[in-house]
Amino acid sequence: MKLITKILDIAKRGVLLNRLDARILGVLDGDRVQVINPQNGVSVTAFVDTTTTIAGQGTVGLYRITNERLNLADGAGIEVREAGRPASLDFIKKKMDGGRLSKDETLTIIKDVVNDDISPAELTAFITASYINPLDMDEVEHLTRAMVETGEQIKFASHPIVDKHSIGGVPGNKISLLVVPIIAASGLKIPKTSSRAITGAGGTADLMEVLAGVEFSAGEVQQMTEKIGGVIVWGGATNIAPADDRIIIQEYPFKIDARGQMLASVMAKKYAVGANLVVIDIPVGLHTKVPSMQDGRKLAREFIELGDRLNIKVECALTYGDIPVGHSIGPNLEVQEALRVLEGSPEPNSFIQKSISLAGIALEMSGKAARDTGAQLAQEILTKGKALEKFREIIAIQGGDPNVKSDDIHPGDHEFVVNAPVSGYVIEMNNTSLITLARLAGAPHDRGAGILLHAKKGKLIRAGEPLFTVYAERSWRLQKAIEEGRRLMPVVVEGMLLGRVPSINGI
Amino acid sequence: MKLITKILDIAKRGVLLNRLDARILGVLDGDRVQVINPQNGVSVTAFVDTTTTIAGQGTVGLYRITNERLNLADGAGIEVREAGRPASLDFIKKKMDGGRLSKDETLTIIKDVVNDDISPAELTAFITASYINPLDMDEVEHLTRAMVETGEQIKFASHPIVDKHSIGGVPGNKISLLVVPIIAASGLKIPKTSSRAITGAGGTADLMEVLAGVEFSAGEVQQMTEKIGGVIVWGGATNIAPADDRIIIQEYPFKIDARGQMLASVMAKKYAVGANLVVIDIPVGLHTKVPSMQDGRKLAREFIELGDRLNIKVECALTYGDIPVGHSIGPNLEVQEALRVLEGSPEPNSFIQKSISLAGIALEMSGKAARDTGAQLAQEILTKGKALEKFREIIAIQGGDPNVKSDDIHPGDHEFVVNAPVSGYVIEMNNTSLITLARLAGAPHDRGAGILLHAKKGKLIRAGEPLFTVYAERSWRLQKAIEEGRRLMPVVVEGMLLGRVPSINGI
Repeated sequence: MKLITKILDIAKRGVLLNRLDARILGVLDGDRVQVINPQNGVSVTAFVDTTTTIAGQGTVGLYRITNERLNLADGAGIEVREAGRPASLDFIKKKMDGGRLSKDETLTIIKDVVNDDISPAELTAFITASYINPLDMDEVEHLTRAMVETGEQIKFASHPIVDKHSIGGVPGNKISLLVVPIIAASGLKIPKTSSRAITGAGGTADLMEVLAGVEFSAGEVQQMTEKIGGVIVWGGATNIAPADDRIIIQEYPFKIDARGQMLASVMAKKYAVGANLVVIDIPVGLHTKVPSMQDGRKLAREFIELGDRLNIKVECALTYGDIPVGHSIGPNLEVQEALRVLEGSPEPNSFIQKSISLAGIALEMSGKAARDTGAQLAQEILTKGKALEKFREIIAIQGGDPNVKSDDIHPGDHEFVVNAPVSGYVIEMNNTSLITLARLAGAPHDRGAGILLHAKKGKLIRAGEPLFTVYAERSWRLQKAIEEGRRLMPVVVEGMLLGRVPSINGI
Repeated sequence: MKLITKILDIAKRGVLLNRLDARILGVLDGDRVQVINPQNGVSVTAFVDTTTTIAGQGTVGLYRITNERLNLADGAGIEVREAGRPASLDFIKKKMDGGRLSKDETLTIIKDVVNDDISPAELTAFITASYINPLDMDEVEHLTRAMVETGEQIKFASHPIVDKHSIGGVPGNKISLLVVPIIAASGLKIPKTSSRAITGAGGTADLMEVLAGVEFSAGEVQQMTEKIGGVIVWGGATNIAPADDRIIIQEYPFKIDARGQMLASVMAKKYAVGANLVVIDIPVGLHTKVPSMQDGRKLAREFIELGDRLNIKVECALTYGDIPVGHSIGPNLEVQEALRVLEGSPEPNSFIQKSISLAGIALEMSGKAARDTGAQLAQEILTKGKALEKFREIIAIQGGDPNVKSDDIHPGDHEFVVNAPVSGYVIEMNNTSLITLARLAGAPHDRGAGILLHAKKGKLIRAGEPLFTVYAERSWRLQKAIEEGRRLMPVVVEGMLLGRVPSINGI
């Protein structure tokens, strides 16, 4: 059916058909159509909404993201057809029925994900099926390669190329801000792509954005890395393994990280940037994604096996994930803490030790340091100011101010100090509650929002001394965080009343 | 956040926020918000799209289906808030992890489904999880009761109330058009709610709509049934077990009918209309939903057990489902065939025998007929014209013309006769291909579209004699059906070439 385009500024995918045109085409709300730009032959799949007024008969509304690929102007002619049923749906059904997916079947699904030929609900069925009927290592390899093939790839002329990844779950885990400059300062290349926070209080990309731009193409990432040895950018802007973002969005409501998808997601990004030496940080702890050492070791073995299949040398570090890394949670606070360490501060120890340990593993893998001397070399690079110097180069090449100092970065203007209600040892810090609190205060969107911890687990504190401070950029957000904070109890001091059961009369 | 309403005539759920307002609220595209009508306090959940132009800052676009519940006018004040995470998501996750859902958990999920508090993708996760980790009978009962409770219910003053259901999969299964008038003519009450075709060429509601209105409220269904003994209406208009439609839409892409959801779906609708005697038609055959007698018997036992739990007496009929019922597929053709039988035609035998067998079971269950005499009584009611008389009353009360005759109903003007390419017996009829062909020709939307079978399985036919005719209302649809029909081979005559493998040179 030939129709006239009406561009609709709605940031989503799809078309808006007049109800009568939809009837003639034989499609209902939610059905799939093929939309073709007759000028250049570009054809995309779109899901149908209907109207009786916004698009008159003979006109079709095109939502913005769908038109990004078609590139039609208001009033242009367009062809809309009934779309066939994508083969992917049969392969997803196969996985629902407990079948194993072949390389081609997996590639077909991932192509359809990237081209929006299947709906978010259909993708969710694939994820749910893979979560319940786990992918075996062959299927994970297929998925990894399919994710790589459906996006851009970087091919460096010389190797080694180092990369680092943390599987997350620990608040305040700003270590990439130290690890990347240390590794680049050693003379190695590390083209680090990071994510923005989805469930957390600040992803590495959110942190870096406090200091510089993070949105670069794959080609720019390569050029910058060739030039100065490292970058810290947002992976979402590179079009590297673009299927991954779509998958993560659908996993978000259920707070799941389906094992096969997670392995493939991490390794596809490493493979696509051309890395051949990869260090993976697996935080282990009750409130992280990996509750026990046993689970951590199993996951580590899987990463290493998948690396073998991809010709990537992988080492994993199981790290202590029960409590936050360092004292700060939230973009500005974390960046300030990282800059202080780069500038020479010997604290916080947990943050420095974790960073140099992970950087050290990469230095040993690459041969820059002999076995068991990597952390020491990393410490030297840090102490001598070489990491700070390299970090300034990275900030500069990403368009930020290389002369920025830790004192230039400030948390939000609104703050609330939580004091210890009793004297005693800090006996528990709940990662999940701390993240929730930081998010309620506005992080990561409000960069000044977050939490500064004054006492960490094991410290003796007196009644009335500050336990932690909540920062926010807007007073109503601070208010909301304070209200919820009473219920969340993110930091527990021994002797604190955990709850109170009222007498019958009190109910 | 207080905003001004802008009604957007888009037939879907959701709100369109200005990007700046979305940032201030801290929500992203696809996030959930709470939308409140401050006039009456009505609050609904909606998913967010964003724009920079269609809704200016301070304004929020309200899509039509979301506004059906809020009932706001253009320019009215509205309150939009960040929405919490529904508890349903944890319960769905529990099912993904293989857990068993309690009564309350199930009710929470189904309430959220009906109130649109969870997205289509989240509902798909629930369905996929229940498909892979099947619901046990307790969970099915919980689901059934939850579906009933979240919709309208009919309470008849006196019983028995009879109902009939076919689990589908067989084309041409127009038997309700005979069964309902036969049962109502016997003096029993049968408030039959039916579905429209989703994957088929015509649901009973699509068929009845050829003759009369089918959209009535639950109250109207009750009144009409009290008055004349029976109705044949579209269940979707009654708000009886409304969760079911949402579930079926999400199952459609994968052509699945998750067992637990299917049992609950059927029985919830029977329970909600107050039925206490139910006959269930389970067509068994290679191209139906139930491939073997063993599967059929298992499903029958489950229906009966679920009925026991709900105080509904259930009997199941395993019927021959390998080939279509009668000779016609598609709304007008099927209605014409049913009217002819009601008017006295002794053919087609398959259609008449199946109808009187099922009606007979209900007559026996109710005590109207002694054991093994139900079919005979049903046949008498049909032969004596009492069923036709009752059907005319049903047509009249539903607003149609009670004097309609079979000759008044016509298939589409465009037809194509497929002749037997060779002489031989008809050895195969493929239900799936026949349905696909009828849908390609325009059924069920184009009521005149469909297929008339001139020879059924087992009949000897000569080369050149008509095998079947395809009807359509529009020539381009007929063309499309003919093109695809060559590939589909819906009817096979012994001796027909099924395919041809070319020589290597021919590739």
